[in-house]
Amino acid sequence: MTASTLADGRLSNSGMRDFAIPEAEAKAAWEADRQHLLHPWTNFASFKERGAFLVSGARGVHVYDTTGRPYLDGMAGLWCVNLGYGREDIVEAIADQARRMPYFTPFVDIGSLPAADLAKEIARIAPGDLNHVFFTCGGSTANDSAVRLIHFYHALRGKKDKRRLLVQMDSYHGSTYLTHSMSGRHTARSPLLNFETEMVQTLRSPNTYRRPEGMDEAAFLDLLISEMEERILSLGADTIAAFFAEPLMGAGGVIVPPRGYHARVQGLCRKYDILYVSDEVVTGFGRLGQFFASTEHFGIEPDIIISAKGITSGYQPLGALIYSDRIHAVLNAAPEDAWFTNGFTYSGHPVVCAAGLATIRAMENEDICGQVRENGPKFEKALKSLLDIDIVGDVRGSHFMMCVEAVADQKTKQVFSPKADVGHRIADHAHELGLIARSIGHLIVLSPPLIFTEEHIAETAATLREAITRTRADLKSEGILS
Amino acid sequence: MTASTLADGRLSNSGMRDFAIPEAEAKAAWEADRQHLLHPWTNFASFKERGAFLVSGARGVHVYDTTGRPYLDGMAGLWCVNLGYGREDIVEAIADQARRMPYFTPFVDIGSLPAADLAKEIARIAPGDLNHVFFTCGGSTANDSAVRLIHFYHALRGKKDKRRLLVQMDSYHGSTYLTHSMSGRHTARSPLLNFETEMVQTLRSPNTYRRPEGMDEAAFLDLLISEMEERILSLGADTIAAFFAEPLMGAGGVIVPPRGYHARVQGLCRKYDILYVSDEVVTGFGRLGQFFASTEHFGIEPDIIISAKGITSGYQPLGALIYSDRIHAVLNAAPEDAWFTNGFTYSGHPVVCAAGLATIRAMENEDICGQVRENGPKFEKALKSLLDIDIVGDVRGSHFMMCVEAVADQKTKQVFSPKADVGHRIADHAHELGLIARSIGHLIVLSPPLIFTEEHIAETAATLREAITRTRADLKSEGILS
Repeated sequence: MTASTLADGRLSNSGMRDFAIPEAEAKAAWEADRQHLLHPWTNFASFKERGAFLVSGARGVHVYDTTGRPYLDGMAGLWCVNLGYGREDIVEAIADQARRMPYFTPFVDIGSLPAADLAKEIARIAPGDLNHVFFTCGGSTANDSAVRLIHFYHALRGKKDKRRLLVQMDSYHGSTYLTHSMSGRHTARSPLLNFETEMVQTLRSPNTYRRPEGMDEAAFLDLLISEMEERILSLGADTIAAFFAEPLMGAGGVIVPPRGYHARVQGLCRKYDILYVSDEVVTGFGRLGQFFASTEHFGIEPDIIISAKGITSGYQPLGALIYSDRIHAVLNAAPEDAWFTNGFTYSGHPVVCAAGLATIRAMENEDICGQVRENGPKFEKALKSLLDIDIVGDVRGSHFMMCVEAVADQKTKQVFSPKADVGHRIADHAHELGLIARSIGHLIVLSPPLIFTEEHIAETAATLREAITRTRADLKSEGILS
Repeated sequence: MTASTLADGRLSNSGMRDFAIPEAEAKAAWEADRQHLLHPWTNFASFKERGAFLVSGARGVHVYDTTGRPYLDGMAGLWCVNLGYGREDIVEAIADQARRMPYFTPFVDIGSLPAADLAKEIARIAPGDLNHVFFTCGGSTANDSAVRLIHFYHALRGKKDKRRLLVQMDSYHGSTYLTHSMSGRHTARSPLLNFETEMVQTLRSPNTYRRPEGMDEAAFLDLLISEMEERILSLGADTIAAFFAEPLMGAGGVIVPPRGYHARVQGLCRKYDILYVSDEVVTGFGRLGQFFASTEHFGIEPDIIISAKGITSGYQPLGALIYSDRIHAVLNAAPEDAWFTNGFTYSGHPVVCAAGLATIRAMENEDICGQVRENGPKFEKALKSLLDIDIVGDVRGSHFMMCVEAVADQKTKQVFSPKADVGHRIADHAHELGLIARSIGHLIVLSPPLIFTEEHIAETAATLREAITRTRADLKSEGILS
């Protein structure tokens, strides 16, 4: 029995209902969206003309538009619907908890059973001594709260000046005011917004594909490490609180650091009493074949892991900050008048936590991580076959976290002009062909549900090949590609 | 038919099930919580000893502990479960949407039907020209995103230097790094944390009860307004982006500004091109008898309203930033390369939005706002009757948002020493007597579900009277009160 039939076997009684809605209703919803909703990452100039593509329903690994047309979901929603759509076990866990107790305050010294149970489960599956959990409603607030926890931790140790954060160019850590300031995506830095702060120190991107010309991978690694150490020494180690990094960058374009990078960065962190925060919002919960990739995949022993997205398979908004016994020992020795003045109304929301518990149960019962370890390499191989197309410069990533980088010239790695809009073109052709893939600049990101079968993998690669081929033909006919 | 029977009439088929769980299971959950969960606003010194009080279930206006004992919920969860517990209509809306489509990306130019529909509904019920909505998962991120939207707006108008934020002492705007820095609660400012930023400018608290001795309310108002104008002029109006305020402060202690305060502040904001942000996370969705209190209750025409909590009756984590046509016109004229680089994975989460739609439907069908306008004044009156106890200094607030302030001396308004822990004592006695009320320092906050009947109101006042009387006896016997 494949993952797909397992998932289908759990479809609700409503079954494969038709997700088409009447045309007038669809038009009204489109207009309501266009008139009243501000989408994340809106480009006003294009949105006011075109509005949004509305998704009406979803089942298994497909989403359906308002005409009832299915699309293969190459994004798992947004790196998150890891178990696919229509999971009746997760739906029932949500509904049962909402009936029993939808909410009660988690503040100070009151709690709920699902939050307690989920914290224990996460401590069980997390690596090393990461046995303590703080819940939020997503990755942004989990990273944001991590900074507050870290400052509190260092202050309790009498190291009040340890406040600076080392982050990487091309990284993405969220969209609160602070976590956006900690992100280094070029494309996220609107010319009209400027959130730089001296507290955040940005290091060179560990982008192996885009390393300086003529430099080999080992020399690039040495450069990254020596630059990092120089920065620490010039700022003063006693001013640096933590290093934040995704083990594999997600939204920045599935960027793969040079081999050995993580261990050497961790060495510097230990040498200079800097906490290592591994942002596993994307890499966690099975995408690379483990619940958490930091230790098993990358050999890091982080002080804090940040999780979100796959932790509920996207069915509910949950983020988690998971921290070590070592940190907790310092907190627990806090003086009587010291409160950790941080928290959200919906930290540990019982219904949200029930979805997290159902997700972990399903992942273990169905050995989702094992499936990814088996099918992930097939996905990598299928996409790497696209490298024979001359406008594909790089295909990188790991397991179900992959990226195709379009270039004007494979040899020089020269990119097309932004005006050529090559990423959008490929994504638009894929969309027409029935595959939803995400474009980020000139990159195409693929992060499908983890229950993708060999058939889905083959279909994704074939559709993407056709979309890139059509884009290539467009560029030729417009004289952009010679 | 009272509100209570209406709510009870919608109980799920599981009915009034017994929420008691086996003692060993309860003990294990308590231990899991204590060992693995970091609660918001933890005091480590006391938590490591006592752990948390775990709530096992909830129905109507009651929550139940793990032994099955009921407690009247005087907090509505945390100012949010406005419609009470066990609402099958909201549970079904959540489950139906989770089955149909639990999630898909809301980014850029993709959307879902529930988010579009809810944005339209909120635009319908919001005052004035507040017709545009950005969704988050709570009040903190809605306020945080508001700052980013405001900076973007001013930058588009060529006013890049308009970045400073005017906020009030005693206010509470959230717990992201930025929104906590914007909050002025004394109790929230741990001596070990310091998030001051020059961008945030804090004004005197408009606390009428604690105004300077010998000053009447009108003179206090003049003082607040003249201080605010002086601050604007000394900083330079061209550096000030927005004024943020709760129309009635919530977590700061249900602080009531002097009469006429809101209109005069709004006058200053208009005079100096400063956006007025009304944080209605607590006051919105019926607590004062309207969907939004800003205009109908306080006569403000804000540029932005922040909503959360009651917007889903707490059943799902939702926040909303609601902004004006005037702001949108500026955004819509943005140049082609300008992106609003802000947003969260779970902005407009379909399941969360379905809960919001069900909440608005229920509030209108059952005229919850009308009920609050009828029963709220009875709640005020019942609590004000406590003023005959000599350690009750003030009873203030409006409708179902009330606060009792304990003092050592009614005349001088002198408070007890923090060591007397009077707030906790009252809350603990109330707890023993079967009422959950929230203590904040020496204050007791009451913010019950909006379906509270006259019986619940009478029970709350009587229980609180007994709790305060017992506290008074304790203080006498310990020699703290003479």
